[in-house]
Amino acid sequence: MSIEELDTTVVGVRRPRIEAPTKVTGTALYASDLPVAGLLHGRFVPSPYAHARIVSIDAAAALALDGVAAVLSAAALPIAGSGTRALEPLAREEALYAGQPVALVLAESEAIAEDAAELVVVDYEPLPAAVDLDAALDASAPPARTSTVGAADAADMAVHGDAAGSVEEAAPTASPNVTSTHRLEHGDVDAAFAASAAVAEGVFRTGWVHQAYIEPQVATAWVEPDGTVAIHSSTQGASFARAAVARVVGIPLEKVKVTPAVVGGGFGGKIVLIEPLVAAAALAARRPVRIAYTRTEDLSATNPAAGLRLEVKVGMDAEGTLTGIRSRIAVDEGAYGDMSPSGLIGPRIGAGYTWPAWDVEVTAVKTNKFGPGAYRGPTATQCTFAIEQLVDELADRLGLDPLEVRLRNAPTEGAQKLDGAWPAVAAREALEAAGEHPLWRKRAALPQDEGIGLAYGLFPGARFAAGAVCRMEPDGSIAVVTGLADITGTATAIAAIAAETLGLSFEQVRVNVVEASAAPQTPVSGGSAITYSVGKAVRAAAEDAREQILRIAADELEIAPADLEIVDGAVRPIGSPDRGVTLSDIARKSTGFGNAYPPVEGRGATVPAELSPSACVNIVHVRVDRDTGRVDVLDVAHVQDVGRAINPLLCEGQMRGGVTQSIGYALFEELVHDEDGQLQTPTFLGYAIPRAEHVPAIDTVIIEVPSKHGPLGAKGIGESAIVPGAAAIANAIHAATGARLRTMPMTPRRVWQALRES
Amino acid sequence: MSIEELDTTVVGVRRPRIEAPTKVTGTALYASDLPVAGLLHGRFVPSPYAHARIVSIDAAAALALDGVAAVLSAAALPIAGSGTRALEPLAREEALYAGQPVALVLAESEAIAEDAAELVVVDYEPLPAAVDLDAALDASAPPARTSTVGAADAADMAVHGDAAGSVEEAAPTASPNVTSTHRLEHGDVDAAFAASAAVAEGVFRTGWVHQAYIEPQVATAWVEPDGTVAIHSSTQGASFARAAVARVVGIPLEKVKVTPAVVGGGFGGKIVLIEPLVAAAALAARRPVRIAYTRTEDLSATNPAAGLRLEVKVGMDAEGTLTGIRSRIAVDEGAYGDMSPSGLIGPRIGAGYTWPAWDVEVTAVKTNKFGPGAYRGPTATQCTFAIEQLVDELADRLGLDPLEVRLRNAPTEGAQKLDGAWPAVAAREALEAAGEHPLWRKRAALPQDEGIGLAYGLFPGARFAAGAVCRMEPDGSIAVVTGLADITGTATAIAAIAAETLGLSFEQVRVNVVEASAAPQTPVSGGSAITYSVGKAVRAAAEDAREQILRIAADELEIAPADLEIVDGAVRPIGSPDRGVTLSDIARKSTGFGNAYPPVEGRGATVPAELSPSACVNIVHVRVDRDTGRVDVLDVAHVQDVGRAINPLLCEGQMRGGVTQSIGYALFEELVHDEDGQLQTPTFLGYAIPRAEHVPAIDTVIIEVPSKHGPLGAKGIGESAIVPGAAAIANAIHAATGARLRTMPMTPRRVWQALRES
Repeated sequence: MSIEELDTTVVGVRRPRIEAPTKVTGTALYASDLPVAGLLHGRFVPSPYAHARIVSIDAAAALALDGVAAVLSAAALPIAGSGTRALEPLAREEALYAGQPVALVLAESEAIAEDAAELVVVDYEPLPAAVDLDAALDASAPPARTSTVGAADAADMAVHGDAAGSVEEAAPTASPNVTSTHRLEHGDVDAAFAASAAVAEGVFRTGWVHQAYIEPQVATAWVEPDGTVAIHSSTQGASFARAAVARVVGIPLEKVKVTPAVVGGGFGGKIVLIEPLVAAAALAARRPVRIAYTRTEDLSATNPAAGLRLEVKVGMDAEGTLTGIRSRIAVDEGAYGDMSPSGLIGPRIGAGYTWPAWDVEVTAVKTNKFGPGAYRGPTATQCTFAIEQLVDELADRLGLDPLEVRLRNAPTEGAQKLDGAWPAVAAREALEAAGEHPLWRKRAALPQDEGIGLAYGLFPGARFAAGAVCRMEPDGSIAVVTGLADITGTATAIAAIAAETLGLSFEQVRVNVVEASAAPQTPVSGGSAITYSVGKAVRAAAEDAREQILRIAADELEIAPADLEIVDGAVRPIGSPDRGVTLSDIARKSTGFGNAYPPVEGRGATVPAELSPSACVNIVHVRVDRDTGRVDVLDVAHVQDVGRAINPLLCEGQMRGGVTQSIGYALFEELVHDEDGQLQTPTFLGYAIPRAEHVPAIDTVIIEVPSKHGPLGAKGIGESAIVPGAAAIANAIHAATGARLRTMPMTPRRVWQALRES
Repeated sequence: MSIEELDTTVVGVRRPRIEAPTKVTGTALYASDLPVAGLLHGRFVPSPYAHARIVSIDAAAALALDGVAAVLSAAALPIAGSGTRALEPLAREEALYAGQPVALVLAESEAIAEDAAELVVVDYEPLPAAVDLDAALDASAPPARTSTVGAADAADMAVHGDAAGSVEEAAPTASPNVTSTHRLEHGDVDAAFAASAAVAEGVFRTGWVHQAYIEPQVATAWVEPDGTVAIHSSTQGASFARAAVARVVGIPLEKVKVTPAVVGGGFGGKIVLIEPLVAAAALAARRPVRIAYTRTEDLSATNPAAGLRLEVKVGMDAEGTLTGIRSRIAVDEGAYGDMSPSGLIGPRIGAGYTWPAWDVEVTAVKTNKFGPGAYRGPTATQCTFAIEQLVDELADRLGLDPLEVRLRNAPTEGAQKLDGAWPAVAAREALEAAGEHPLWRKRAALPQDEGIGLAYGLFPGARFAAGAVCRMEPDGSIAVVTGLADITGTATAIAAIAAETLGLSFEQVRVNVVEASAAPQTPVSGGSAITYSVGKAVRAAAEDAREQILRIAADELEIAPADLEIVDGAVRPIGSPDRGVTLSDIARKSTGFGNAYPPVEGRGATVPAELSPSACVNIVHVRVDRDTGRVDVLDVAHVQDVGRAINPLLCEGQMRGGVTQSIGYALFEELVHDEDGQLQTPTFLGYAIPRAEHVPAIDTVIIEVPSKHGPLGAKGIGESAIVPGAAAIANAIHAATGARLRTMPMTPRRVWQALRES
């Protein structure tokens, strides 16, 4: 059936997440809740220095404490190699950032472990630290690492995929901290700028931003008698974590099991971090081990979004067509580049536009901070913050309508982009809907110091190979078997896809999330991939199951499958609702001791042929206090193309969540280090996430331009939802005050500074 | 590819069981080894009476003991209904056999539970017991049960399937203990007997026989916070147990998980017994609960093979053709008929022959003993004990060669049998091979009191609906995902089937046994079904996976799939061993972040079109001590058609195991009750299983007559292997002494008695 013809009855219906009752009533089993016999609790000994040589570790006093089972240093772990975050879950001879775990205390209780950690005496030889990104790039900067780096498995670990096709690796610059330089070039950018009616430029800075999930990192591991390492983890990707553990700990894949727990928020931060360590610790201690971060450990020693410096210059002709872009981007990779976005950011600076010419260079820089990880829409928020301000500025200077300018440069399918060709993007539909939104029309008449800004954005998303099983259970219900970590309600979405495809009610389908070695190939819950990529596999599996069900019913009823339909839990001849065979009957005859038919085992194994980015537009209304620089977000409209809203309630949840997170990103959130590399924001008192008072009602507008590739036309929407938010706030601040902000977060101090300068 | 053309490289190779090293080194995780936090241990309060009304249960003293968490009676369990074993895991108002669990004590340790169980005071009102099968059939017998029976779920629980098609339910006789009467009739048996050259008859009795697994029954259950009941059990059928728990405990199927543990022997006895109880106890106690039977509990309160009385009369014409059979069979169903073989035994009395006429009546009788369960080749050993002696006797009386007589009456495909039409059976091949065996030829010249006997037998086996998944893992290996309980080396067999089909080495395939709700439909490991039925699904899944692998390789190499082969872990163009793409590459591109291809997810969902019984012949050489009646088995040859030997070593293991068990059945094993219904054989001191000295070297002869339906021609062989053993020993005793034995086990006393009578 084609998407247009599709008259859905389950898909498109607003319903709460399947697991909501367990979360609301406190019966969801989070990773830290799992009862484990003989469990040891881990607590870190963190480095007090941003950079230091570890001379010695004296654990005698800690080990003397009653209830302490072990104090593990890097050397005690069954992990060989060095140089990557994965291979150095505990610092080896050198501590590379303040808060880096140097030793792991294992004790019978968390309290004992905490007491013991304070008794571990580490003798350090402090080394000069490279903290600030700009300073670290200087040729005279101290090296952020002095010890030799072993064979890294960074390529394997790269969750962001390979760098784009046209990227080249250049020789390092003179700074000892530059690890790589990537270039993307096309056309003559100088000539383009020369021929432009206007050119705008700026140096944009964005800080390190934490994913700020509610539940800190937590994982438990134990070793079964045959040597199998079993891990139960709050992870976004059980299969990925399984492979990482096998590789890092050096055990065969078949000897690793990873069960995904209920995840209390991830946003990219829980792809794989502590799983190899907890596995290694369990192997070393020969006891079950749990590591549950405190909030301070989580803010100090995980994998937030990298700090960036983006020099960007953009040209536009008199009609509003973009002519070219030049950008020099420095990526702060901190101490470990395993999960650096430096291979990814080059294409991202192109944002949602087509460019006739570009010259982009990305430099990855080591510093003495934690290493970066993934964060919802990695680097797109930051790049869009730069581009959407420059585009706004050019439209302003050329006297063009900002919406018209964006429409003019929006991509058409097949047009060139920095890393290939544009797939279909409903940018036009999103921008036009934004143009009609009352909030956008309201901007003409606003009080003093208020402004309305707009930004457009998208994230390309990912297309992942995925498998799924739709299995008829002995009671006639359908189980979707998957290994997915449900961080955004995707289990609810795929249940609807299966039910819709099979002609069943939502209640007749359930989702069985199973341990990674038992699960069909399931990608990381990242890259906006689950509904789009896994949902596609579920759709295929459900179609397969439906065929099998109809085949059995056809045999029972002696009617051709094509003349049958599934209605109300039974297969009936089309037009003869009084005849039929129930799904329970079919289950009994194919799963019990009856054996008339093979069991119903629908299988899906798919990979979308291309990406289906979800375009979106934010319109933001702000009021700026000129005396303090405080920005209040008064109103937001978020328009987003979702392809098809499998569950509009959950789509809106993603949209509202993205906008809310973008407000934090734009105005509040930053992991701040002092010049010695000490984290100044180690709790939620200092690391400011938006509170209810900071988030206005958000008007969400869903647009449905079906994807040719996603299940029932759906697109992945989770990441795009955050992308334009910060840029829209910056443009609104400009509309209110005439000031252009170049640094995120746009704190009162920075806004006040910008107001003074403008 | 046709079976005949098949040139196998993995299948047909002798190799030990995959899991053998873990069992030999003690690292296999048996169900009682599972560490569980907060575990309570269960111990039963058994009934001292074979039949009694339970007046009251006083648990006060037991509950006062430190460490006792609960004392549960039937009323405290969340199980409604009555009348079946499943619904009465603890006796309700009436104890129905000596040793029946009346209450369950839950305590922090097994020792405390045991002490507390002795403190529970149960007030009984003894009732007259119906113990002996013959006596229970008398009209004046006391009823074995006086309390009302609720809605039973016996039909649902019937693991032996429905009774055969031509069976009718007759009115109960005058005895209060007869629960049903089944009849099978065809032709005029009286006329057949009248026209026969000879008629032989006898009344055969066989005792209750325990499966005598090494590991007693054990299961653990806990309730997850969302109400899901998780069970870890030594079970032969996790999926079946899951459905049984859901039904008996009255919770939705989706809220039950059953993980099959390593099984320390089952032989039919661990299909489902304690799982509903342990689940109900965990729900009642709100704590994890383990029930691990002691040996005495296991011999006293499980589900052994039922005691039988078989009156059989058989006619033969002068040429040796069987003319008809009349049989009256009484089945001792004990206290519970849930798993009674009474619906199954009627057709079994026809053994491996075609009959022109039959008249069979089966009467099921309640007594005050445990209920029966399945036992390797249910009832076939007993029926064959009768038939093969009578056939032997007729051949003897008519002066015909016993092997020739059997060949003459062996079934041809499509010929009528008592419950339908004969599928293909390689009886002729097996009998002919037996005839050529040196041991059979040795019988002409034997010392005094020695004899060689022969018997032929088969078990029809089962054809079960089964699913299987062959999944390519991220490291390029293949995982066969299944829910099977491996009691006989079947994981090793299905790994070979998958490897052979995929063109891989045995080592490149592993078997992932997963929890029942995660597993493809997997039948109970019974009915000789796993290699035959699950192996067929694995074969289909592997073929599906192979196609998917070749499709990816074809795309990579730009060569048609038909021109490719899988060799040495890579896909190569046929005839170009230097080109190709490795399976690791294919895995990387279909499971990692590469995403060029969908993942390889081979799916099999099959049910064999008909049965493929495995015919076998035992030749046994015995010496009988005329003074004591002691029988020594000096030599055994076991000839068996296996269809195709997937792994000859494991086939021989099944054959040797079957013969060994048949020696126990024939000579030693019986659960003996005194006239009050007290079990006289509550330990392995009294219940005599064969020791090494009782089992001679067994010569196994594998015949391969491929099945049209089994994977690569394989047949299910586990049950047939035991069937003719006891009859062959009986015939050998006759050959040695001229005495005919009518009762199993043929203890020295019974043999001595028969010698006196003959």
